[in-house]
Amino acid sequence: MKTFVICSGGLDSVSLAHKVAVEKTLAGLISFDYGQRHKKELDFARACAQRLDVRHMIIDIRAVGEGLAGSALTDEIDVPNGHYAEDTMRITVVPNRNAIMLAIAFGVAAAQNADAVATAVHGGDHFIYPDCRPGFIEAFQAMQAQALDGYAKIALYAPYVNLSKANIVSDGVRHRTPFEATWSCYKGGKHHCGRCGTCVERREAFDLAGVTDPTTYEDAAFWREAVARKAG
Amino acid sequence: MKTFVICSGGLDSVSLAHKVAVEKTLAGLISFDYGQRHKKELDFARACAQRLDVRHMIIDIRAVGEGLAGSALTDEIDVPNGHYAEDTMRITVVPNRNAIMLAIAFGVAAAQNADAVATAVHGGDHFIYPDCRPGFIEAFQAMQAQALDGYAKIALYAPYVNLSKANIVSDGVRHRTPFEATWSCYKGGKHHCGRCGTCVERREAFDLAGVTDPTTYEDAAFWREAVARKAG
Repeated sequence: MKTFVICSGGLDSVSLAHKVAVEKTLAGLISFDYGQRHKKELDFARACAQRLDVRHMIIDIRAVGEGLAGSALTDEIDVPNGHYAEDTMRITVVPNRNAIMLAIAFGVAAAQNADAVATAVHGGDHFIYPDCRPGFIEAFQAMQAQALDGYAKIALYAPYVNLSKANIVSDGVRHRTPFEATWSCYKGGKHHCGRCGTCVERREAFDLAGVTDPTTYEDAAFWREAVARKAG
Repeated sequence: MKTFVICSGGLDSVSLAHKVAVEKTLAGLISFDYGQRHKKELDFARACAQRLDVRHMIIDIRAVGEGLAGSALTDEIDVPNGHYAEDTMRITVVPNRNAIMLAIAFGVAAAQNADAVATAVHGGDHFIYPDCRPGFIEAFQAMQAQALDGYAKIALYAPYVNLSKANIVSDGVRHRTPFEATWSCYKGGKHHCGRCGTCVERREAFDLAGVTDPTTYEDAAFWREAVARKAG
């Protein structure tokens, strides 16, 4: 099954690329430049494509991002610290981002005669992002079946949708994902900051999975505090 | 109901903009630069926005088009002549184009706190384009309800989906659409060529609606031949 993987360079989507490379036929990686404040994660996606010896397409949708004002992922406002699930993280939502990226990926897959598009959306995002929930994945697949009827039959593969990030770490171990070659931090420093929402979520996932985290964090201790605050 | 209209500058979407301006609150026009071989139609969209005194956003998705190879709308191959419904027109399909443009428009609408996105897809396209059929419109709305759940409630308004292009001409007359200020031709000449699929379809629609066509065509007679060929 010739499958394109949407890959940001993060832990989830790089793990997915390695999984697809083992289980299916990896057709290539698709990344999006939507005006992220740093391009560092795209370097990790590129390295992943080289490692797996497949094509890497970076699709520039910055002009789309300009129309979608008010997101912390692209605007010049402070990145909030804390656990991903906290209310303060809500502003990091780019409106309709997954629907936009998936629709483009399906267009690419149709043009390239592929059989599937794979996305690393997962359960850990459910609270914050409606477009990471199983209901969205099902509705998107149903929409694409209509949109491409008679032209192409392309499956949406979202194997992590009912899993947690800790489950993804466990799965990544099985497929030999080099976790040190993935990037999660919202800030574009030399090392992961250890304090932003995605750093905390990443560090906690390794802990929950019982897997040694190979990541270097600027602040290696903060995550415990953030997780405790969430639990409290 | 604050509504954005996806407007290419063509007869259908300019008529829709005028309809929405009368029936709802027109929030603005959204056009896409997807690497069309000529930008002429975008000038007509811009003029429509000025006439209706609303904002015009042109979103550059050329980088997306580069990933979707093999379409006559963007590639350097000959534009086929003949009636839209003929098999030779199939190559003018850009894979998944409507899903991509609608997903972006929903993102814009969510970011701008609008209530609806309007699209001019219509019955005349059903044979060729699966993403212009009622089933697609319903599935897309269902997908967006999931994708934006809890963030925004945005309706998809597609009033022409069960109508023919002739019906749109009749509707346009009711809303005083200046048809001469719309562009349909796939070729970017001074006047409409009169021979390409969209010119033939346009001319025929006026004929079927019993409305005088104000358009100047380079070849004003060809459409009858093309329509007769289709009927035969």
